[in-house]
Amino acid sequence: MSTPSAYAELVAAHARLYRFDHLAAILSWDRSTMMPPGGSAARAAADAELRGLIHGLRRAPRLAELIQRAGDEALDDVERANLREMRRDWLEANALPETLASARALAGARCEHAWRSQRPANDWSGFLSNFREVVHLAREEAVHLADATGLAPYDTLLDRYEPGMRTAVLDRLFGALQTWMPDLVAHAQEAQRNMAVIVPAGPFPLADQRRLCHALMEVLGFDFSAGRLDQSAHPFTGGVAEDVRITTRYDERDFLPALNSTLHETGHARYAQGLPRAWLSQPLGRPRSYAIHESQSLLLEMQVGRSREFAEVLAPLLRTYLGERAGFDADNLHRLLARVAPGRIRVSADEASYPAHVIVRYQIERALISGEIEAEDIPTLWDEKMLALLGVDTRGNYGDGCMQDVHWTDGAFGYFPSYTLGAMYAAQWFAEVRRTTPEIGSQIAVGNLQALFDWLDANIWSQASRWETSELVCRASGTDLDPAHFRAHLEARYLGAH
Amino acid sequence: MSTPSAYAELVAAHARLYRFDHLAAILSWDRSTMMPPGGSAARAAADAELRGLIHGLRRAPRLAELIQRAGDEALDDVERANLREMRRDWLEANALPETLASARALAGARCEHAWRSQRPANDWSGFLSNFREVVHLAREEAVHLADATGLAPYDTLLDRYEPGMRTAVLDRLFGALQTWMPDLVAHAQEAQRNMAVIVPAGPFPLADQRRLCHALMEVLGFDFSAGRLDQSAHPFTGGVAEDVRITTRYDERDFLPALNSTLHETGHARYAQGLPRAWLSQPLGRPRSYAIHESQSLLLEMQVGRSREFAEVLAPLLRTYLGERAGFDADNLHRLLARVAPGRIRVSADEASYPAHVIVRYQIERALISGEIEAEDIPTLWDEKMLALLGVDTRGNYGDGCMQDVHWTDGAFGYFPSYTLGAMYAAQWFAEVRRTTPEIGSQIAVGNLQALFDWLDANIWSQASRWETSELVCRASGTDLDPAHFRAHLEARYLGAH
Repeated sequence: MSTPSAYAELVAAHARLYRFDHLAAILSWDRSTMMPPGGSAARAAADAELRGLIHGLRRAPRLAELIQRAGDEALDDVERANLREMRRDWLEANALPETLASARALAGARCEHAWRSQRPANDWSGFLSNFREVVHLAREEAVHLADATGLAPYDTLLDRYEPGMRTAVLDRLFGALQTWMPDLVAHAQEAQRNMAVIVPAGPFPLADQRRLCHALMEVLGFDFSAGRLDQSAHPFTGGVAEDVRITTRYDERDFLPALNSTLHETGHARYAQGLPRAWLSQPLGRPRSYAIHESQSLLLEMQVGRSREFAEVLAPLLRTYLGERAGFDADNLHRLLARVAPGRIRVSADEASYPAHVIVRYQIERALISGEIEAEDIPTLWDEKMLALLGVDTRGNYGDGCMQDVHWTDGAFGYFPSYTLGAMYAAQWFAEVRRTTPEIGSQIAVGNLQALFDWLDANIWSQASRWETSELVCRASGTDLDPAHFRAHLEARYLGAH
Repeated sequence: MSTPSAYAELVAAHARLYRFDHLAAILSWDRSTMMPPGGSAARAAADAELRGLIHGLRRAPRLAELIQRAGDEALDDVERANLREMRRDWLEANALPETLASARALAGARCEHAWRSQRPANDWSGFLSNFREVVHLAREEAVHLADATGLAPYDTLLDRYEPGMRTAVLDRLFGALQTWMPDLVAHAQEAQRNMAVIVPAGPFPLADQRRLCHALMEVLGFDFSAGRLDQSAHPFTGGVAEDVRITTRYDERDFLPALNSTLHETGHARYAQGLPRAWLSQPLGRPRSYAIHESQSLLLEMQVGRSREFAEVLAPLLRTYLGERAGFDADNLHRLLARVAPGRIRVSADEASYPAHVIVRYQIERALISGEIEAEDIPTLWDEKMLALLGVDTRGNYGDGCMQDVHWTDGAFGYFPSYTLGAMYAAQWFAEVRRTTPEIGSQIAVGNLQALFDWLDANIWSQASRWETSELVCRASGTDLDPAHFRAHLEARYLGAH
């Protein structure tokens, strides 16, 4: 019997890890959708056991040795790409000393647990007492990673979510955005001021909304033989590629939260369902990055879902499932979905003002990690920036201000930029689809999304982590990320430019 | 630092196993209730990984060494009982050589997979071609276990489900049953012949039945903060003590399947929810046996659920959730639930004729394991015995005959007796409750089951695996299993004896 090659042994180890990750993903979905509250303590202990097992397998020193040896083996291009992703995975799992990793997890969990009641109570000073430790450990983490990689501290955090992304690039992208976005929002509001919009009157029974969401997902090509739609407080896409579990949330008074989150999560879901079967058990088969993932959800929610053409698809769906109501015509629906109204809350922001929420968070967290500011300086900066970018007064409202998101609470610095990068990528994909299929608009108006999905399948889904992000982007659309597409999209939709 | 005692190390190892078992239980529930069909192949691989891990932990040679050493440590009575159950667990996990265990699992899986289409096709000879191997391996297994334990081969299989149960006891119990049961069934049918029973007319919308089942479970004290009710093809109780997942099945034309299976599974569920918290992670904290578990489900489904008194509780529930219909009065409901009508199918058998189904299977499987008969002899024996015990003609109908259950299909010989042992225990518990709380009948009629549940909690649930079965039974009811209670119960209910 011949010695198995190092690469083959790595493939087997990752296939095993993939199977344990499968179980962890389904269990995590269950925790958010099905588990009764009384089950949570025992489940937390059981989950920790599995996480510890997976973490140990990912950190195994044997893997490092195999990765080293496999580098000298005769591998084809695909195998070499897989080895690159294996190396990234191993580095990430081993990036932090165990003591720092658990201190960080503990501080994040403590801060988040208290935040759940501090946010509704607007208790900034209570929050601050836990959050200081979260910031302290995130800095320590960033410095540790910077020493190991040679990157700047904040870049090491960015790199975790967007491999290859750097502060210099974000500064340029977001800096430019910042110069034209406030005007665009103001002009859009001005243009919409005298536009009559009917807000369809509820109630909209949940069972009806559920059927609507299922029908919408059918139109969007979700494969129900390999996935489900359920309900949770915060919508998410979970499960595994072979069994994708998405959730939405329902509000009896308003059908838009369910509609929008179903569009959004179905975008994530189709990426997962479209990942290449042959690579699924390997790091190569994973989605490319958080921003690329977000580009899939925003492509459906924003590029398609808020287009005038798609309103032609939505109108009859709404009439069928929610009944005939004033406002369920395509013109009105489009105006309703495309309303620009800056507010305090990121997750309910309109498409045009959303990037401002990201820019504010990016600028603050970058300064926080570099040590230019301290945690207690956040509210003042928050108020200034929200006023400057969106004209929104946030003073004194911490709960709907800098305490509104869970990301900082549990130390996920570096994550926020993915949202706006995703919006930019989505605009770039859609521009490319429009270029290669000029009739895509009229196809969408009759519910035919095949050309769009074929393009996504060929260029994004089937490529998984085959290429580094910028190569994936170039191969798909001819150039690296070009923010002009996003600007042109917003101007066309909100200022009527063509 | 002192060396941890062997017993303490065993406790820690079992707590870890308990956490992995928790995950496996929730995943298994998901597979039967939530998983879309497309997820099954990837899930099977992932589940196998977890099962292999758990099996390896349970078989660890280190445990045998620790169990040996712990026997010489100063343990209190409870610890000693836990050690006894640890030893049982280790012996069970190590009972078979790996090659035999996997051959058995493989043959069972192959036979079961083919059976799913062979049963509806009434394909006995196709079934036989796989089943012969299942029987062959079960005999090999029984002989292997007999060599190791000194028990008779079939007793070693019995012992897996009912620790301590022996063929000699079953022969006595079932032999006696067999002498009076056919007459009782015949007399009950005779007495019911001229009894008018209204079968309430459907349809009964599933959503209404679902609400009915929830309301029923509330009456039965199910803790919804630590459990759920869902739907599956075959009702079962799954999950873990801290998060009990029961299922029922719905038939739009008939509310009885949902009603009966909800009563049944809630009985299992209350046992699980009542297990002692302090022992949960240890073998000591497990349910005592399959028959004792079944006694809990049959106590609610049969002793309580089919009593005239409980019909007073059911009638208003049915009217509230399913609407006013002819037949939803307590008298008629009781007659409907207590109808005796022998048939071919075990799972839909009435209370009085059910034991015949078990006796037939018991006598056949015992002869099969001992080698007195071969697999191809089963149909003839089946026909003879079903005719003799129930007057039912089963000739030529294999699918609803000896192929109707999954138990033999996957080699679970020794399991069937648990059902009737459970019915006997349930009658014994209820007789004891009636003795200690003479007014229990009138309490039940007004939906007050507290005295019953207090007795079960004190005598069964909280005792978990603290005692060997016969000691548990003696402590709870003053004597070991006494089948006279079951006979008296059936005679009182079906022949009007008091």
